[in-house]
Amino acid sequence: MNNEILNYESVALDDDDSALVILDQTELPGEIKILRLKNQKDIWQAIYKLQVRGAPAIGIAAGFGLYLAAKNIQADDYEEFFSQFHAAKEYLNSSRPTAVNLSWALNRLENVLINNRDKNISEIKKLLRDEAVKIKDEDILMCRKIGEYGLTLIKDGDGILTHCNAGQLATSKYGTALAPIHLGRERGMNFKVYCDETRPLLQGARLSTFELIADGVETTLICDNMASQVMKNGWINAVFVGCDRVAANGDACNKIGTSGLAVLAKYYGVPFYVLGPTSTIDMSIKNGREIIIEQRPAEEVTEMWYKKRMAPKDVKVYNPAFDVTDNELITGIVTEYGIARPPYSESLKKIFDEKK
Amino acid sequence: MNNEILNYESVALDDDDSALVILDQTELPGEIKILRLKNQKDIWQAIYKLQVRGAPAIGIAAGFGLYLAAKNIQADDYEEFFSQFHAAKEYLNSSRPTAVNLSWALNRLENVLINNRDKNISEIKKLLRDEAVKIKDEDILMCRKIGEYGLTLIKDGDGILTHCNAGQLATSKYGTALAPIHLGRERGMNFKVYCDETRPLLQGARLSTFELIADGVETTLICDNMASQVMKNGWINAVFVGCDRVAANGDACNKIGTSGLAVLAKYYGVPFYVLGPTSTIDMSIKNGREIIIEQRPAEEVTEMWYKKRMAPKDVKVYNPAFDVTDNELITGIVTEYGIARPPYSESLKKIFDEKK
Repeated sequence: MNNEILNYESVALDDDDSALVILDQTELPGEIKILRLKNQKDIWQAIYKLQVRGAPAIGIAAGFGLYLAAKNIQADDYEEFFSQFHAAKEYLNSSRPTAVNLSWALNRLENVLINNRDKNISEIKKLLRDEAVKIKDEDILMCRKIGEYGLTLIKDGDGILTHCNAGQLATSKYGTALAPIHLGRERGMNFKVYCDETRPLLQGARLSTFELIADGVETTLICDNMASQVMKNGWINAVFVGCDRVAANGDACNKIGTSGLAVLAKYYGVPFYVLGPTSTIDMSIKNGREIIIEQRPAEEVTEMWYKKRMAPKDVKVYNPAFDVTDNELITGIVTEYGIARPPYSESLKKIFDEKK
Repeated sequence: MNNEILNYESVALDDDDSALVILDQTELPGEIKILRLKNQKDIWQAIYKLQVRGAPAIGIAAGFGLYLAAKNIQADDYEEFFSQFHAAKEYLNSSRPTAVNLSWALNRLENVLINNRDKNISEIKKLLRDEAVKIKDEDILMCRKIGEYGLTLIKDGDGILTHCNAGQLATSKYGTALAPIHLGRERGMNFKVYCDETRPLLQGARLSTFELIADGVETTLICDNMASQVMKNGWINAVFVGCDRVAANGDACNKIGTSGLAVLAKYYGVPFYVLGPTSTIDMSIKNGREIIIEQRPAEEVTEMWYKKRMAPKDVKVYNPAFDVTDNELITGIVTEYGIARPPYSESLKKIFDEKK
């Protein structure tokens, strides 16, 4: 495995400022393919085709993508520059309309333009670059902080179970659920990480195992239904999972299968931690019942990868993309501002109050 | 879906007594392929290649297979007949050396031969046929009884969750875990059955959904990690699973993933039933810790069906074929002699005492 892969940090600006550099995630783990994307159309395609995935990673890619588009605009006049910039922004924003981080990152760059209309174009281009780099640096810092807090929960040599991919590949560096593992590696620590393969799309088998092995972590792949046996064997000291949305009471929405893991962890006495940035905590949602679960196509389950059908044609399929884990099953929620403990209605509010 | 498929009863003797008729399970669910196997070599291959699978079904196939071999022996002399019969028996027995039902069925036929050496060869051939048919009839009766007892635990319209395939395809008819469903269908009842796909080999997705749909059951396929959400939704009234081996204290060894389901069922307040014949209850084993779990090849997990690799080459894989469910998680054990309830050390002993 090529350890150098981790230096790419999933999403980067090329050294000579000419291209967005990404690791093509649709080819993993079979092929390590680095893409250097120079024009808007290629960047749009990369986001659309999930060659770059994970909310934070998409935001960073969009920031660099819009900067590169802006850099290549020939206009000297502000109005003309803004017009072309805005067209590029709208174009990139159409690549995955539902991804919040995408529009959030693009808006940050547009605000730079709006707030600096008195400056000349070459100055503005430099400020846009700074903002795009800042989006990435902030993400690295946030992941690092989550990693720092997460590391206080485990010790060298521990067995960690994780689900799906809330790792470096979904962010800039470190990841969220996997941040303590990668940060620990930088400090010479060794963990034994068990990755649920995470049906139906196998992000655990394809992506988490890939980035952990690349980082030299002792990594074991299991099918989702083996988690009970692995915990029963006494191999797991903590479960680390990411989150897509956390309610004010701590109910945590994450990749389908997470809630089952939490029930198992409680039964076997294994601490269960949710790791994610405060941006995923939605204080406007009281509890998990308010979160609507996306239902995905049946073919993801019945046709697996590579389109060979493996279930009868007439079968009904229930294929929720996420589930919600009850707060009573969660030992702690690890954010970049510290670890919230039950009762979450109080501890999450405290984190938000201190953040202000 | 071809409803007639269920009339084949997975394993049968052809009407004209000339062939073993099986439904080729390696082709399911893509193709419904009926095999008529007339000679030893083809029957050996069918068992070896898992075209017929499931302990009871293998036993029945072996019985018919050995009868067909005996029928074609030309010898009139007992010693010569016995010699050729024994060679055929040893040959068939080598098809899957670890399958207990295989040698058990073959021995039953050989005992017929040993106990009737005073009879002439054509009489003996008839007795061998009777014994082979009896093995199957006993299996049907046993499955039907398990179905009867199981039906007392559910009501029309209930939602049932099952794992792997402990159905008709693994036995002669009805199955074990699925016996109440099929028997209920005969009586015009309707259940909503949820099938775990059962990674890594997908027996739930490929086989259980197939036989249930063929029987007109409303069948929904889920990935194993969705069971928690399905129970949380309130869709499941009972979990029915089979068993490979049950210890004297009720600890039940079954397909990997079963113990996790049991933990979930307890958490969500869903009754969890193990269904199987008394032949799978091993009173010589005190508890589940004495059961050694078979570890299977990593490729089952990393290469899925059709040999497209989906995990990094260097990844370690933990791939236990079974797990053991603690007796405290089991609501009842349904056998052909009645339903055992906790404490199992007493109730299982009572069933065995009454059986004598």
